[in-house]
Amino acid sequence: MRNKLIAEFIGTYFLYLIIGMCVTPPGAGALTPLVVGVGLTALVYSCGHISKAHFNPATTVAYFFAGTHPRKAFLPFVAVILAGAVCAALTLLALNLEGLTQVTAIEINTPRVIVAEFAFTFALMWVILNVAIAKGTVGNGFYGLAIGAIVAAGAFAVGPISFAAFNPAVTIALCINGFIPWSALGLYIIVQVSAAATTGILFRSMQITNIDEFPKAA
Amino acid sequence: MRNKLIAEFIGTYFLYLIIGMCVTPPGAGALTPLVVGVGLTALVYSCGHISKAHFNPATTVAYFFAGTHPRKAFLPFVAVILAGAVCAALTLLALNLEGLTQVTAIEINTPRVIVAEFAFTFALMWVILNVAIAKGTVGNGFYGLAIGAIVAAGAFAVGPISFAAFNPAVTIALCINGFIPWSALGLYIIVQVSAAATTGILFRSMQITNIDEFPKAA
Amino acid sequence: MRNKLIAEFIGTYFLYLIIGMCVTPPGAGALTPLVVGVGLTALVYSCGHISKAHFNPATTVAYFFAGTHPRKAFLPFVAVILAGAVCAALTLLALNLEGLTQVTAIEINTPRVIVAEFAFTFALMWVILNVAIAKGTVGNGFYGLAIGAIVAAGAFAVGPISFAAFNPAVTIALCINGFIPWSALGLYIIVQVSAAATTGILFRSMQITNIDEFPKAA
Amino acid sequence: MRNKLIAEFIGTYFLYLIIGMCVTPPGAGALTPLVVGVGLTALVYSCGHISKAHFNPATTVAYFFAGTHPRKAFLPFVAVILAGAVCAALTLLALNLEGLTQVTAIEINTPRVIVAEFAFTFALMWVILNVAIAKGTVGNGFYGLAIGAIVAAGAFAVGPISFAAFNPAVTIALCINGFIPWSALGLYIIVQVSAAATTGILFRSMQITNIDEFPKAA
Repeated sequence: MRNKLIAEFIGTYFLYLIIGMCVTPPGAGALTPLVVGVGLTALVYSCGHISKAHFNPATTVAYFFAGTHPRKAFLPFVAVILAGAVCAALTLLALNLEGLTQVTAIEINTPRVIVAEFAFTFALMWVILNVAIAKGTVGNGFYGLAIGAIVAAGAFAVGPISFAAFNPAVTIALCINGFIPWSALGLYIIVQVSAAATTGILFRSMQITNIDEFPKAA
Repeated sequence: MRNKLIAEFIGTYFLYLIIGMCVTPPGAGALTPLVVGVGLTALVYSCGHISKAHFNPATTVAYFFAGTHPRKAFLPFVAVILAGAVCAALTLLALNLEGLTQVTAIEINTPRVIVAEFAFTFALMWVILNVAIAKGTVGNGFYGLAIGAIVAAGAFAVGPISFAAFNPAVTIALCINGFIPWSALGLYIIVQVSAAATTGILFRSMQITNIDEFPKAA
Repeated sequence: MRNKLIAEFIGTYFLYLIIGMCVTPPGAGALTPLVVGVGLTALVYSCGHISKAHFNPATTVAYFFAGTHPRKAFLPFVAVILAGAVCAALTLLALNLEGLTQVTAIEINTPRVIVAEFAFTFALMWVILNVAIAKGTVGNGFYGLAIGAIVAAGAFAVGPISFAAFNPAVTIALCINGFIPWSALGLYIIVQVSAAATTGILFRSMQITNIDEFPKAA
Repeated sequence: MRNKLIAEFIGTYFLYLIIGMCVTPPGAGALTPLVVGVGLTALVYSCGHISKAHFNPATTVAYFFAGTHPRKAFLPFVAVILAGAVCAALTLLALNLEGLTQVTAIEINTPRVIVAEFAFTFALMWVILNVAIAKGTVGNGFYGLAIGAIVAAGAFAVGPISFAAFNPAVTIALCINGFIPWSALGLYIIVQVSAAATTGILFRSMQITNIDEFPKAA
């Protein structure tokens, strides 16, 4: 368990460090979604064999409902993932970047945010479950690429609408750094967790889960 | 069959949702072809093991002529693929995006559209058949990358000419959202289906099909 | 042999069709090297299992000097590769694109062109030989990605110097469409073939070739 | 050993040639980090099976502390890697590029440079060790992609702060060509080597190293 939590902390810390640096002006501009996907691909490949590379409490929820994440490992994973994202957000503050002082939070159009975050959190979870715990893809080497790719595509698609968080830990970090208003945090988390639970339940009902992934996962 | 149709619906829905969001201003601008390829890569990896990830009636036609798609599964696949694309187009309308009201359909230069859509639908089908049902690539893990890559490259190459649909379901969705004129829909579909049939017949004649893919595919 | 030549024709045709469309204004602009790499990745994956996906007479030269390309298959490969590139160049002319009439050939700074084309043709051949016929990478699934990646990186690096051809067939096609002056064609081909032969000889001397690739390759 | 040193020289030479050409105006502009990652991916795939594709003295340090790089191969690797980077820097000078005369070194904000270079050298080493010598990823085919991806993401994230070297050999080459001031070289190397040693020690303590990689590696 110790190794798994180290891996989740490192992975989530760097995931948000990359996101935060890229969205802080001058940052990576229009290429940001691609950078985040590329970075996530590398981080998933570096941690997947240790902890399954959640880096996202919604992923923990999806695995839980799909039936492969043990109940007793639920809170430790979520706690360390949140800690990783928050530490990265604080690193950004500590760097005292000029660009961070110019940030204004996005405007929230509630129905659009709900559609955007639900749709692409669902898509992300659908990709994760199918490349990480499906019978039909056991032993594949493309899992990191697929997960990074759906995040990149989703972030290009709905970034202007919702800032493309798809991840409660990243959402909190984006609130800390001022990109998403704190008042919207509850909405984001409810939508993201609902989408993750929906995907986990659908996936389980399709009976395509690799049963070898059950409880041994943590 | 139920799982296959669920996978085709989800994959096609998100394929067009990504396309539609990226081409609706402000959208992803010059990076759009790359985003579509990246998204398609993820979606193919998430569904290929379930349904072979057609997401495109032309693909169903190519598999059919190559000899690996069963006749009785032809119409269900095409129907659910069309439904996925149409639902995504309607989602765009429902979001009531300002950018969508500013769209004007591309101008059709018929000979150029024929060359562009024939050439790159052929190239897409050629890539799909060779990475999905060829003897020489059985068990490969690059199929999603290859398919996303040819779509991205083709869309950069001929996007300005034909909007780079290469896919009757995507073409219909692009008509619904106003990017391609309805009057050109018949032309697109005839060219795309002809290219797909040509590729399927050529591929079969080369005798490099993995016969283990025959009829069991659906 | 027939299948191999079909695959080389199709692959080279689409490789140059992508290149030509992307460099013809408006084209793909600053993203062109990436598009070419992405397209090449897809095409290599679609043809590698049939013909080893040369798409480049320099590759045929490198394989020949490395010892895996049979003498009697040398001219047929080169001929069909040249035919593929020329047909694609003629397709561009036939499309009668406005942008093609505005093209002016690059200025040739001979020493820089020699360094650029020698260095990156060497790098391309080094990557190809190591991912396609080395003992240490037998059965890998990354060959298409690696080959597309080195072309993309090399084209970003020296595109402004030499138009980043690294390929005699592509060089001829670029002359036909007016991007490289005909007067420089001989220089390009000498440099590219020299680099390819050098890489083949070095590779063979390292004794890391997978001998199972010998003569059966065509 | 001879083959390993040839591979390290070639790989590092082209890694810096790509970097140097892309950062010299006009260069690859905002796409530079992506190009460097893409090029590194190709080079790692071309040399990994020969020498493990360090291309970076920090990598040699990390492998050494992780326990898989033999003591007697330490100095030869570092020497040839430095030689490769320096030769590429001299190639740039020899090409006499106009853009190189306009270069001014970045301004060094010491605390930010320390954070940026430590964080992403750590992340790079973490990815390398986990994809190259971990028990859980033995035989994977994604190592080159993962390594290129973390460099690209890190370079987008902190390029504006530290020029994103993450590599003492590249740092020296960047000093030669004027991008980083010589006065900062010591700081960079201390930070990079510290990060690499830290990652190697942490990785070893997690007991996830593939013991088959021990001493045979060179």
